[in-house]
Amino acid sequence: MTPEKGKFKHVTEVSVRNYEIDWQGIVHNANYLLYFEIGRVGYLEQLGAKLDVNTVRHESKVVVARNEIDYLSPAQFGETLTVYTRISVIRNTSFFFEGYIEEESGHRPISSNVSIHVWLDHRTGKPMSVPAHFRKLVGEYEGENALIEKPGLMT
Amino acid sequence: MTPEKGKFKHVTEVSVRNYEIDWQGIVHNANYLLYFEIGRVGYLEQLGAKLDVNTVRHESKVVVARNEIDYLSPAQFGETLTVYTRISVIRNTSFFFEGYIEEESGHRPISSNVSIHVWLDHRTGKPMSVPAHFRKLVGEYEGENALIEKPGLMT
Amino acid sequence: MTPEKGKFKHVTEVSVRNYEIDWQGIVHNANYLLYFEIGRVGYLEQLGAKLDVNTVRHESKVVVARNEIDYLSPAQFGETLTVYTRISVIRNTSFFFEGYIEEESGHRPISSNVSIHVWLDHRTGKPMSVPAHFRKLVGEYEGENALIEKPGLMT
Amino acid sequence: MTPEKGKFKHVTEVSVRNYEIDWQGIVHNANYLLYFEIGRVGYLEQLGAKLDVNTVRHESKVVVARNEIDYLSPAQFGETLTVYTRISVIRNTSFFFEGYIEEESGHRPISSNVSIHVWLDHRTGKPMSVPAHFRKLVGEYEGENALIEKPGLMT
Repeated sequence: MTPEKGKFKHVTEVSVRNYEIDWQGIVHNANYLLYFEIGRVGYLEQLGAKLDVNTVRHESKVVVARNEIDYLSPAQFGETLTVYTRISVIRNTSFFFEGYIEEESGHRPISSNVSIHVWLDHRTGKPMSVPAHFRKLVGEYEGENALIEKPGLMT
Repeated sequence: MTPEKGKFKHVTEVSVRNYEIDWQGIVHNANYLLYFEIGRVGYLEQLGAKLDVNTVRHESKVVVARNEIDYLSPAQFGETLTVYTRISVIRNTSFFFEGYIEEESGHRPISSNVSIHVWLDHRTGKPMSVPAHFRKLVGEYEGENALIEKPGLMT
Repeated sequence: MTPEKGKFKHVTEVSVRNYEIDWQGIVHNANYLLYFEIGRVGYLEQLGAKLDVNTVRHESKVVVARNEIDYLSPAQFGETLTVYTRISVIRNTSFFFEGYIEEESGHRPISSNVSIHVWLDHRTGKPMSVPAHFRKLVGEYEGENALIEKPGLMT
Repeated sequence: MTPEKGKFKHVTEVSVRNYEIDWQGIVHNANYLLYFEIGRVGYLEQLGAKLDVNTVRHESKVVVARNEIDYLSPAQFGETLTVYTRISVIRNTSFFFEGYIEEESGHRPISSNVSIHVWLDHRTGKPMSVPAHFRKLVGEYEGENALIEKPGLMT
């Protein structure tokens, strides 16, 4: 379940905030989803891609269709976390983000995430092929680490 | 991906709150995780089980190990949601919750969830068999809808 | 500090959700602000007023300028809260919401709130007089309980 | 309403996170309360004071009794905020935190906060004099900027 760290080029630092913790200084499980989102937003900014992948809106171009989170060990109050983010796969109409969080100083694994994002035609609301410019941006950034399928194949 | 509604015996109602929405009245994707949690808490209360399955704490007895969420359509501001919750499987040291959310009046599918919870020995922190009393409570409530494996088998 | 309950005509019910609590089942202090917001949104809906008073946006018509919250006793996990909401004062360019929360079954005082909202001219961003139709709506609903000053006076 | 910046010795940096924003990149009004809390937690850590002032718990020693927030201009997505924090007054059984937030690069005023915290006797739940060691820690850190009244006076 733990992804290969060597494949990640994008790294963000997140400090655990006091109101994110539960009793005894442990982060509530829903907050990891927010940490992974911070990673995705930073990743897309670095790529220069103008899109918002964190919404479930069917009006906008890209919607999040699925999230998988594995909890490896709980983050504690006062810890700084390293969030690794990459796009691992682009299929015809969708792409996959992978995320991995570890505690910064001791490299303790905290959580891993896969999220699936679907590109929608704004007018019809139907899935459409992930545009060429986005495939190109990701391909140049990720190199061999990303599997970028040819557009037009099913799904 | 949409679970069979007929298998769910536990139902909770959740109103979308204004601060849970994004621009244009759409619920942020992390909030669905919180709605499913409301369902699990209500389920365990109805069962009379005294445990907290929503934490990632390794000090406590039960920890959440994994969450899978499928986003089917975005919930809107002002909508009332029906949250269906059930325990579908109990294995040796873990059990699975399934959740399904639909919009109440029109039955529009909103989201589905599977979460995996692991029972830990408080002193050693190692997984232990899910206790007999919990297997019994769930078995009586779920009947044939839950797959309850014999304790002692691996995992 | 506790407002006079008899002056409130608008009442909303809020259930404490599990993820709003801190260790030992007590609501985090920032969440009361969200509960009062639920009350204000419901109040304006009942009035039929089309405005969003819960944002700090200077682009929109009405912005929240100040919040005062008194914490009277902590809400606990599993409690149902009664949120009382009223507009107490309309001045030239601003109006005041008052809120009061008590635990439903035992009427234990939980928190009280005053928030100040300013009406802005969308083009200039400058404060403008609260429109006549809003003064009328509030005046008819609140009757003698609201102090509605004449527009045009300073502030 | 804007506090004198020269009186603040404690400064924390907070990045606006994507999920804290409303439509069009503006921070929801309840989040400022969380930013001020980050400042208070950092302040007490720097002082070496072992206490949690951010809860409403009557079981613990220090409870938050009141919060006042003025919204000066909305924070935007992508902005970094500077949070200034100080203890301005210690009375017999209570003390006052003041906070001030500005946008980091342009020094645009964002929000100011006063919070009142009451020291409680753990057994009786009644207010007790703020302990001498806490008065001493704050007095040494704040110097002439804090008004530290003698214990034993009323309130």
